[in-house]
Amino acid sequence: MPDQAAPVRVELPESFRVPAGTTAGEAMRELDLPNKGPQAVVVVRESDGTLRDLSWAPAQDTEVAPVPADSEEGRSVIRHSTAHVLAQAVQSINPEAKLGIGPPIKDGFYYDFDVDEPFTPEDLKVIEKKMRQIIKSGQRFSRRVYESTDEAREELVGEPYKLELIDDKGAVDDDEIMEVGGAELTAYDNVNPRTGERLWGDLCRGPHVPTTKYIPAFTLTRSSAAYWRGDQNLADLQRIYGTAWESTEAMDTYLDMLAEAEKRDHRRLGAELDLFSFPDELGSGLPVFHPKGGIIRREMEDYSREQHAAAGYEFVNTPHVTKGHLFEMSKHLEWYADGMFPPMHLDAEYNDDGTVRKPGQDYYVKPMNCPMHNLIFNSRGRSYRELPLRLFEFGSVYRYEKSGVIHGLTRARGFTQDDAHIYCAQDQVVEELTTTLKFVLQLLKDYGLDDFYLELSTKDPEKYVGTDELWAEATETLRTVAESSGLDLVPDPGGAAFYGPKISVQVKDALGRTWQMSTIQLDFFLPELFDLEYTAPDGSKQRPVMIHRALFGSIERFFGVLTEHYGGAFPVWLAPVQVVGIPVAEAFAPHLQQVVNRLRGRRVRAEVDHSDDRMQKKIRNHTTAKVPFMLLAGERDVEANAVSFRFRDGTQLNGVPVDEAIVAIDEWEESRRNDSPTAESMSEFLDAARKRR
Amino acid sequence: MPDQAAPVRVELPESFRVPAGTTAGEAMRELDLPNKGPQAVVVVRESDGTLRDLSWAPAQDTEVAPVPADSEEGRSVIRHSTAHVLAQAVQSINPEAKLGIGPPIKDGFYYDFDVDEPFTPEDLKVIEKKMRQIIKSGQRFSRRVYESTDEAREELVGEPYKLELIDDKGAVDDDEIMEVGGAELTAYDNVNPRTGERLWGDLCRGPHVPTTKYIPAFTLTRSSAAYWRGDQNLADLQRIYGTAWESTEAMDTYLDMLAEAEKRDHRRLGAELDLFSFPDELGSGLPVFHPKGGIIRREMEDYSREQHAAAGYEFVNTPHVTKGHLFEMSKHLEWYADGMFPPMHLDAEYNDDGTVRKPGQDYYVKPMNCPMHNLIFNSRGRSYRELPLRLFEFGSVYRYEKSGVIHGLTRARGFTQDDAHIYCAQDQVVEELTTTLKFVLQLLKDYGLDDFYLELSTKDPEKYVGTDELWAEATETLRTVAESSGLDLVPDPGGAAFYGPKISVQVKDALGRTWQMSTIQLDFFLPELFDLEYTAPDGSKQRPVMIHRALFGSIERFFGVLTEHYGGAFPVWLAPVQVVGIPVAEAFAPHLQQVVNRLRGRRVRAEVDHSDDRMQKKIRNHTTAKVPFMLLAGERDVEANAVSFRFRDGTQLNGVPVDEAIVAIDEWEESRRNDSPTAESMSEFLDAARKRR
Repeated sequence: MPDQAAPVRVELPESFRVPAGTTAGEAMRELDLPNKGPQAVVVVRESDGTLRDLSWAPAQDTEVAPVPADSEEGRSVIRHSTAHVLAQAVQSINPEAKLGIGPPIKDGFYYDFDVDEPFTPEDLKVIEKKMRQIIKSGQRFSRRVYESTDEAREELVGEPYKLELIDDKGAVDDDEIMEVGGAELTAYDNVNPRTGERLWGDLCRGPHVPTTKYIPAFTLTRSSAAYWRGDQNLADLQRIYGTAWESTEAMDTYLDMLAEAEKRDHRRLGAELDLFSFPDELGSGLPVFHPKGGIIRREMEDYSREQHAAAGYEFVNTPHVTKGHLFEMSKHLEWYADGMFPPMHLDAEYNDDGTVRKPGQDYYVKPMNCPMHNLIFNSRGRSYRELPLRLFEFGSVYRYEKSGVIHGLTRARGFTQDDAHIYCAQDQVVEELTTTLKFVLQLLKDYGLDDFYLELSTKDPEKYVGTDELWAEATETLRTVAESSGLDLVPDPGGAAFYGPKISVQVKDALGRTWQMSTIQLDFFLPELFDLEYTAPDGSKQRPVMIHRALFGSIERFFGVLTEHYGGAFPVWLAPVQVVGIPVAEAFAPHLQQVVNRLRGRRVRAEVDHSDDRMQKKIRNHTTAKVPFMLLAGERDVEANAVSFRFRDGTQLNGVPVDEAIVAIDEWEESRRNDSPTAESMSEFLDAARKRR
Repeated sequence: MPDQAAPVRVELPESFRVPAGTTAGEAMRELDLPNKGPQAVVVVRESDGTLRDLSWAPAQDTEVAPVPADSEEGRSVIRHSTAHVLAQAVQSINPEAKLGIGPPIKDGFYYDFDVDEPFTPEDLKVIEKKMRQIIKSGQRFSRRVYESTDEAREELVGEPYKLELIDDKGAVDDDEIMEVGGAELTAYDNVNPRTGERLWGDLCRGPHVPTTKYIPAFTLTRSSAAYWRGDQNLADLQRIYGTAWESTEAMDTYLDMLAEAEKRDHRRLGAELDLFSFPDELGSGLPVFHPKGGIIRREMEDYSREQHAAAGYEFVNTPHVTKGHLFEMSKHLEWYADGMFPPMHLDAEYNDDGTVRKPGQDYYVKPMNCPMHNLIFNSRGRSYRELPLRLFEFGSVYRYEKSGVIHGLTRARGFTQDDAHIYCAQDQVVEELTTTLKFVLQLLKDYGLDDFYLELSTKDPEKYVGTDELWAEATETLRTVAESSGLDLVPDPGGAAFYGPKISVQVKDALGRTWQMSTIQLDFFLPELFDLEYTAPDGSKQRPVMIHRALFGSIERFFGVLTEHYGGAFPVWLAPVQVVGIPVAEAFAPHLQQVVNRLRGRRVRAEVDHSDDRMQKKIRNHTTAKVPFMLLAGERDVEANAVSFRFRDGTQLNGVPVDEAIVAIDEWEESRRNDSPTAESMSEFLDAARKRR
């Protein structure tokens, strides 16, 4: 989102000096900045990263960096300040409302309130109106340090949740740190700019924008139920969400993107285009793919199989359930049990009196395929000649995601990974990783995704095995490979758990949203646990290194992302129905049926709409169904043995000779172009074909 | 087996008359039968099916059919009599051995004994020697009716298991009925033919062969532990297995077939050819497919997908786990719970004190795909225009098979069905069933299986739903379709449970063994349970009929059967490695590598053996690995730009020009021929290709 919403950046110096006793704001005004407006910079950052109000005056000369309003940090400050205004407005309307917390979040902010009734959309309008009044008044955000916690407690005696926060100081999570944190206990007062009167205030660490003039654009978006501290056992609260931006333009861009994202929501398109559903009878996060979705999925799988075969992968199959023993070996039951479905107890034998004669054992549905691939590696002796051994499988796995986080196809409980494990010798690792990364990126590009960066996830200090040296070495190997790809590399400290560090490919979709897709993980540890070995050229037994990699991530997730990326208008090669024949009148249907039959002979997914609907209705239906090629035929077409193309964008290309049309459609499909055909692009395509002959 | 083992049949009349007071044997000797030997007929059958000894003399004139020694019934009698000889031999060696039961079984017989120690192979040799002495002595089997059960009890006071059988009379299972049964309680005595002395005897219903001369061929095969009445809670017994036949030739054919079956055992070949394994870590009945097995499996699946797409099937995907609610709807949890894996309990929420706040629910891994396909049918309104709607999926299912019955790939706990459910209108059923049956048979033929008969399974009177009328109608529909196929149709009364009757395709493999493969089941009932509906042309809502069908049955089972059918020598199109280049000396390797590279360009699975082994060793290795095309190259081949073919049967075809060889291999593969190439067949294939040019 950020890049989409950013207007032309104000030019600012990287840093400037704030003399002792001067405020950061005053020091900045001394600078001769071109194009700078009063709202261009919202706070400053000290060299240690601490953000400071513009009203902050250091005790000694200090070098600081300006934090622009249109940066992520700047927007966070604006949003946090807007959250204060929200709380102020709510309490001015309903003085009985008790305050929870009100942090900035990704793309917006919220504030939680203890009120008797949930907020209605009508309430939100009233609150928003009140907020606009407050903002217009230009009130100042003024920082104040409490002399003691007792002083704070006295002032906040009517705010039970704030009192709790004061008591908990030092044992608070990230969100709450927004409220209290640092060495001092502070409040921010909302002050009348003319009279200096304190109008409202909140226990808060800050920083904030200097005045509400720095909030040029905001809107409330929705309300929901919430729990104090997110804990269902604690008090029921009501949350109001909103967003705020550095300019009306930035907010509009964001809201347009949201609306577009809403239209492209894969769950919505999945139903509209009859691709998949989530039947209640199965349970949350367990999708079924309908015939049209099945076609897309099959195309994706076929193409993936083809690419993997060409890249030297070997295909294996493993079951979906196993004795728990396997996941004891792999230590998944030790580290990952919370993410697994609970056990099934099998094979116990009982005496007639019901006592156990032979105890059974626990079986599990698998959350990962790697341990099973290790068993295949270990099924016989291996030679260095076989390495790198690349075992590939479309492996369906099941993970116990909490109901709250399940989201359509992108976060499901059951999904199929395009999973492979590569076993290689130590001296093959760099080359294999390099090849794998290239392979991944090419596959993503084949779907029209070409805006990437990489993330390097390093050791989770709480959850890892193996030595620090091994992790450091593996991390450096990954970094070298990632850097040599020429892509941006972003660190993700602590993002890699258990077996080893990983590179993940972050992909931007058509709306500029980032999705984590493919991962490549280096693993020295599972080979130890499974005692994997191969015979080296000198006859010695050696331990292979293991690379875990999934390119789509999961087919379901990739399917969901693609649906949104294409907005449901799948490219020709993936489209469930590629061609629909629409006769101008039923008399011309046989002509189209012949064309369609010839296309089917070339394995093009084509049909004729013989329904009773009128032509215009048919065109509307198939445009909505996002069929890439509509072929119309009237009298003139039949006479000339031609067809007329109609495209999803409404353009039309008339009187194309049937033979040319058939070859062009077939070749367009074969080319796996990812753009939607239009009159213009098809016309070019036909011209190019004519020239080749 | 029977047909394989049968020698030329003795010509016998269909029936003949036994005058009152005459024995069946005497009456038969009166007939002027050509080619009849004394052992050609073992018993006779009355018109009600009752089998009678040849010594039986009816009270009034009776028409009977001779039961030849080389029929299935005749062999059963021979085997039953041999079991008596076995028991006689065991007790003559060890008078302390107590008798269990000793019935004929498929292809043989067994007898259970209560003895202190398990039988050793050495024991079996001694017992077999004793049996041969007994048989040589030509002792008679003589039927005797007990006056009362008390008489029997007195006589059998030393045989506790027989006493139990006497007490249980009337509540005995099939096997035991062999011992006691019918209106009279009878014994069969083994009698010295010269002296008339009773040498041994057994509580038994009979009938038996007249004398041990009627046991021309037998052998003991193995021993095992057993339980009295098969119940683990009852006494431990020791079982001896054997087989017996009407001639030495028949037995040799059978034993050869057994040896061949042993060599072709798919579990053995699976390991030898590195196709699949059953890792202990996963549990019983859960196979993993190694890369070479994965290639075969992928070829099978690709071909199946292609055929299904061409036949108008649509591809769907459904998850492997679901809430139990689905199987409540389908009534599987009511009727089929024993065949399902136990539940996983999910989604419960707990209070801090451990009490349940929100109860969770049971999830199951699916044993069948049909309910999920019904949900897809029901995901939106359906029109008659969409019927027949054919939903296809490679659906992996999990069934709780008892450890004892699990057998390699042919009876596993986890397997993948090539499963489809066809929804059609009532008036489409016959045509759809006919098309489906043709489709099935063609697919089986494509794998070289072409010896079929059909089985029509009808209502299990204990387990069914719906009305008798509906079952009768459905059964007649299936019978009509089955009969019009022209194949033999064998009834299987009571073989269809729950939803409806079914046709199953019984396939004979290369060893003459019959396997049940494909099933086609008609179902009026699940559409009721799921309230499936479509809109008919008149706008009314109608209930579709459902056809369940799996062609392979399961991929795993079909894979196992094919492995045995081909004896591991998979046809070219399925072979994991299709071509291996074997240079006469390493100097000629580059020439072969070029050939192999060109073959790979045509997607032929080809490689060069660059190992240090000598040529003859390489040929042996790849012959054992059953690679269909070995390409040799020496100096002369290189000079002539040719290769020499070496085949699995040891034949060779020298100096084939490289271009011709490449095209021929590619075309052979494309043709999906199921025979193993030889010098002769390849030579013909090359000639035909030359003629086409």
